[in-house]
Amino acid sequence: MKASDSIKVHLGQRVKLLRLQVGLSQEAFADRCGLDRTYISGIERGVRNPTLEVLYIIATGLSIDLPTLFAFDHSV
Amino acid sequence: MKASDSIKVHLGQRVKLLRLQVGLSQEAFADRCGLDRTYISGIERGVRNPTLEVLYIIATGLSIDLPTLFAFDHSV
Repeated sequence: MKASDSIKVHLGQRVKLLRLQVGLSQEAFADRCGLDRTYISGIERGVRNPTLEVLYIIATGLSIDLPTLFAFDHSV
Repeated sequence: MKASDSIKVHLGQRVKLLRLQVGLSQEAFADRCGLDRTYISGIERGVRNPTLEVLYIIATGLSIDLPTLFAFDHSV
């Protein structure tokens, strides 16, 4: 897997884990973030390449900061 | 300043600080990342909204991980 694909997959898994930990459905989380549910789904499946602004919105929606959002092993 | 602008400005300042700490010019850093110098300049000025893949390339180019790249105060 290319490094650029791997980071998207790892981040998607991280977002899903954190979302489930706070007990939010994709729908509820998308509403909280003001993003489309299918976009959240795409991020969690690792097929989207979100921008810094979207990453910040997601972290804010999870009530965490960006270092915490990225606190996962992403060595390829 | 909008939160979305603030995060871009904060990240830009962080990238510049880290780049200078490793003694790289924008040109040399852009070459290392395989990105255009003007794009690096735009990121450092906070006027670009880089994607996750680009952020990962920048962190890799600085030999750090993403949590370290985002280890700055970005409360708005």
